[in-house]
Amino acid sequence: MSKLPALFTCRCLNRLISPTIFKTTENFIIRCHSSDISVKELIKEAESSMLVNEKPSKPPFAKNLFLGIFDKDVLVYPEVFSIDQLNLLQRKLEPIEKYLKNEVKSLEIEETGNISNEIIKNLKNLSLFGLQIPEKYGGQGLNATEYARICELIGEDSSVSLLLLSHQALGVQSLLCFGTEEQKRKYLPGLASGESYAAFCLSEETSGSDLASIQTKVEKSENDKESNWILNGSKLWVTNANNAHIFTVLALSKSVNQFGEQQLVSVFLVEKDYPGVFVGKPTNIIGLKGVKLSEVEFKNVKLTEANLIGNQSDGFQIAIDILNINRYASGAVTLSLMKKMFKLVVNHVLKRKQFVADLKDYEQIQRLCSEVSLRIYALESMLYMTTGLLDCYKNYDGSMENAIIKAFSMEEGQKCINICLDMMGAQGLIKGEPYEKFYRDFKCSSIFDGTLDFTKLFIASTGLHQAILLHEDIGKNINLLKQLFNNRKQTMDNPSLNLELFLQLHPSLVQSSKKLEYCVLRLEFAVTTLLRRYGEEIFSQQVEILKLSSVVIDIYAMTAVLGRASRAYCTGILNAESEITLAQKYCFDATKRVRQIINNIVSEQDATADFSHSKIAEDIFKHGGYFFEHPLNRNI
Amino acid sequence: MSKLPALFTCRCLNRLISPTIFKTTENFIIRCHSSDISVKELIKEAESSMLVNEKPSKPPFAKNLFLGIFDKDVLVYPEVFSIDQLNLLQRKLEPIEKYLKNEVKSLEIEETGNISNEIIKNLKNLSLFGLQIPEKYGGQGLNATEYARICELIGEDSSVSLLLLSHQALGVQSLLCFGTEEQKRKYLPGLASGESYAAFCLSEETSGSDLASIQTKVEKSENDKESNWILNGSKLWVTNANNAHIFTVLALSKSVNQFGEQQLVSVFLVEKDYPGVFVGKPTNIIGLKGVKLSEVEFKNVKLTEANLIGNQSDGFQIAIDILNINRYASGAVTLSLMKKMFKLVVNHVLKRKQFVADLKDYEQIQRLCSEVSLRIYALESMLYMTTGLLDCYKNYDGSMENAIIKAFSMEEGQKCINICLDMMGAQGLIKGEPYEKFYRDFKCSSIFDGTLDFTKLFIASTGLHQAILLHEDIGKNINLLKQLFNNRKQTMDNPSLNLELFLQLHPSLVQSSKKLEYCVLRLEFAVTTLLRRYGEEIFSQQVEILKLSSVVIDIYAMTAVLGRASRAYCTGILNAESEITLAQKYCFDATKRVRQIINNIVSEQDATADFSHSKIAEDIFKHGGYFFEHPLNRNI
Repeated sequence: MSKLPALFTCRCLNRLISPTIFKTTENFIIRCHSSDISVKELIKEAESSMLVNEKPSKPPFAKNLFLGIFDKDVLVYPEVFSIDQLNLLQRKLEPIEKYLKNEVKSLEIEETGNISNEIIKNLKNLSLFGLQIPEKYGGQGLNATEYARICELIGEDSSVSLLLLSHQALGVQSLLCFGTEEQKRKYLPGLASGESYAAFCLSEETSGSDLASIQTKVEKSENDKESNWILNGSKLWVTNANNAHIFTVLALSKSVNQFGEQQLVSVFLVEKDYPGVFVGKPTNIIGLKGVKLSEVEFKNVKLTEANLIGNQSDGFQIAIDILNINRYASGAVTLSLMKKMFKLVVNHVLKRKQFVADLKDYEQIQRLCSEVSLRIYALESMLYMTTGLLDCYKNYDGSMENAIIKAFSMEEGQKCINICLDMMGAQGLIKGEPYEKFYRDFKCSSIFDGTLDFTKLFIASTGLHQAILLHEDIGKNINLLKQLFNNRKQTMDNPSLNLELFLQLHPSLVQSSKKLEYCVLRLEFAVTTLLRRYGEEIFSQQVEILKLSSVVIDIYAMTAVLGRASRAYCTGILNAESEITLAQKYCFDATKRVRQIINNIVSEQDATADFSHSKIAEDIFKHGGYFFEHPLNRNI
Repeated sequence: MSKLPALFTCRCLNRLISPTIFKTTENFIIRCHSSDISVKELIKEAESSMLVNEKPSKPPFAKNLFLGIFDKDVLVYPEVFSIDQLNLLQRKLEPIEKYLKNEVKSLEIEETGNISNEIIKNLKNLSLFGLQIPEKYGGQGLNATEYARICELIGEDSSVSLLLLSHQALGVQSLLCFGTEEQKRKYLPGLASGESYAAFCLSEETSGSDLASIQTKVEKSENDKESNWILNGSKLWVTNANNAHIFTVLALSKSVNQFGEQQLVSVFLVEKDYPGVFVGKPTNIIGLKGVKLSEVEFKNVKLTEANLIGNQSDGFQIAIDILNINRYASGAVTLSLMKKMFKLVVNHVLKRKQFVADLKDYEQIQRLCSEVSLRIYALESMLYMTTGLLDCYKNYDGSMENAIIKAFSMEEGQKCINICLDMMGAQGLIKGEPYEKFYRDFKCSSIFDGTLDFTKLFIASTGLHQAILLHEDIGKNINLLKQLFNNRKQTMDNPSLNLELFLQLHPSLVQSSKKLEYCVLRLEFAVTTLLRRYGEEIFSQQVEILKLSSVVIDIYAMTAVLGRASRAYCTGILNAESEITLAQKYCFDATKRVRQIINNIVSEQDATADFSHSKIAEDIFKHGGYFFEHPLNRNI
């Protein structure tokens, strides 16, 4: 590759070099300006410096959006791998992709209700059971990006991906993050090879995401010398319980200190073979037929300190962390499902005629296909932006990005699957054709780590907490006059743009970057408006905060889409012009959505009108359902 | 009931008396003002006059909305029955409701894949097979309102309703509307008693709603003296074909006249026992498990003139009419399904706790329940407003109202079912629980008479045709200055309201009636804008005309909801205050939707942005699917 104009090289470098060395970019630009050094050499130099330097740290991007803080660095789509590393990964992916695409028959798994031993053997041979377990315990030690990329392949079959993910994203994770060296050495090698399975025991009859209502409990055994704890209780919906060897169990425990008795949530590792562990009959759900979900009962199971993970009081945090830490993995699986379904549907559209014309020539069909691809592109962009942030920065707090991916993949994934099913017409409803299975598998896989609303409430509540903390901090230093002026422009839905985001992007995306900036400023305005209106009461205003969530999801999607398209264009990726078109359209539509939601939030009139929802619901609950008199009834 | 204030009596009468005698309302008001006659007596007098007078006629309400013509009479929610008639109907409904609610076990039907002979016998005893067949042929001779009301009960089980509706709404209908007296006498008595079933044979391998691509054909048999026609071809998705005795078949025929040979679509009655009729294996679809859909093959089936329905060239019109005429019936079935599911879900919400609090106390849950009930109320209101129009006016053209009900029940029904399923959480996905079955049955029942987009395209195209015809007529008489002024106000999204719709409604609905009027005027503006922009090309602008459809559906819903709530309040129906709250909220939300859609239609900027959908789709079709380079890939 030869020399390029300096400006281009600058943009190009912004995108090319890893964010790890982004801080030094300016240096490179200057050198590029003044010397003859080629871009390729520059990159090499940059990347070798990356290997030497330690990872920098970075404040949480998505969380900070609630404060109106936009970290422009992120628009430089993070580059995790050098070309050599990428080639290495590619070689790792090939056999996995080949096996899963060609040998695993999803309809067969569904019919038999079982993943065959043959498949399991091959999954073990492909080393798919210990992807994130460090090499020293026999695993692959993958980083987030590599893990996500492999999850995309695993997503080829929904049951296989459930088997593998429930094992490593939920089952193994607490041990991995919070286990002692001894516990790790004892269990991880078996779990990494797939010799033993781990299962995660969280939900109960009366509790799902709601840890506070757990009934399962451990009690100190006083008279028994062998054990310190006795576990009793029963867990529902335990994925792959019938095959699992090790259960990670959340249970209530008591602790006595100077303030009296205290209820704690603790996490225990329980082996299947311990006396008192019973796996019940599986629950028959509509999808993911190859893996069983069962009840697991614990009757007076004796445990020792060696079974406790972390401290006795850590359970709550461990559960939250585990659910948060790997949400991008389920995003990768959904992405894979969406791509696969869309491929089949486009194939159908290309073959089918209707009313003499080709189906593909109908404007509405074009629109629907475009809508699906916009969403696939956005999810894909967000996924690898997030894993990039996780991999490039030290201890990056990606909890909100993770939740955004989860929420986006549930909400928009559902829309895409509905659109695809509708495009298939009657064929979409035939048993044995692949289409309706996507719906069922998707629905089932989306329930494992919290409902959509729960995830969206988490996103906005976390952001608002961040905002409240900071507002208290900076409250004293506000320039009142400036704020007054800004508020006036904001009230007119016309905030002053001054972030100059376009500087980070290819010039064809200037308009889109302004739209993104508009959305960022409007989110900040909505947050301050709500905090002013409700104070700390905002946390019980679920409907309002769900709206904030939708906005921040769209902002993150816009950021990812713009960064990726700009990188693609500047570095000459194949079909990059199409990426630019798509990014522009995504930002156009997203901005319209954001404008509408924010105007709805700030309008007092809308707030009043929305209050009638509660009034109507109150009536409905009073009557136990829809209660209006039939319209044919008459009185006089 | 004693005397009431004159103004109230006036409003009250507006609502109470049937539209048949609406024209004479003014008379009654004056008499009421000046005499001592009580309301009850007035009503009696009015109703007896209704029995004497012939039905008046009325131009099609929904079609005329495309011209900005709003028939205010319709806001007086049509009153079809006197109290005596209503009591009679009620007595007819009771045994049907009792049997279907208590004796028909939906999960059992699903499991066995069959509606038992016992159930069939009881359905016959309840006279449910000939609801619309005139009494002289052994049927019930019900009007539209009675039929819809019974369909609501039948909807209790989706398979039972499919069996009964496919028989009478599709199978019997062509005979009923277009058959000769001889044909009717031969077939209708058996069909009315349920002794024989009728099935409708429309779809083929390459054609669904698309009649023009039919391959099944009849040819004149030259050498055979017994028969005049030979039928060949094969039909798919024939509901209940395995049990049917009579098939209504659409087929191509040739006709030779002075201009040469012509292809016609004709309709034939074919008996199951004719040589050459073969019913194939049923298609396994995901829902409606109690009824089979099969292929039916016709191999050299001999037919005579006595098998032809209508004229040889009538087939196209017959098919369209049959699909249109009874769409409200499937709306009634969907309404029933929505009510039933919602009842179960509310029941769950009332029992369940989450995060210590009761589920019903969560704002978002309240909102979702309210959203569902708004939609149930709107569908119910539209359904009986439509059947009222059909029953009260002579030969009322309700084709658009029918299509609106179908589209609304598909689109909003789907939303409600998704909301309900999501509120059930994991329980919504368990096989054997009733929840997931609603989704499957709903999806399957919605494919029988055309997809959602097809129905919505029908609505807007029909309306636009009406508008074009009229615009040509009135083109010469436009007051240009006035139009210019109106246009300016419209461009500012601020049309002048002058229809005074509030005069027809209870005073608490004044604001809502103004919102409705705003929407009516905006629709007119959008129609003229589009006609100006595209001319006759508008019909290929699917995306634009789908938007018009959404608007007209919301306008019809607002009209029905306002009319019904006002009637309920003025006549003192139980819980009428809640109806008022609900109607206000429906109009508030609908107006926001309409405002947004119309602004989107008239904005040139949006039109340009939407064009990129086609551009994106073009790329996707060129590459045969999602084709963007993976974001990890790099070039340099």
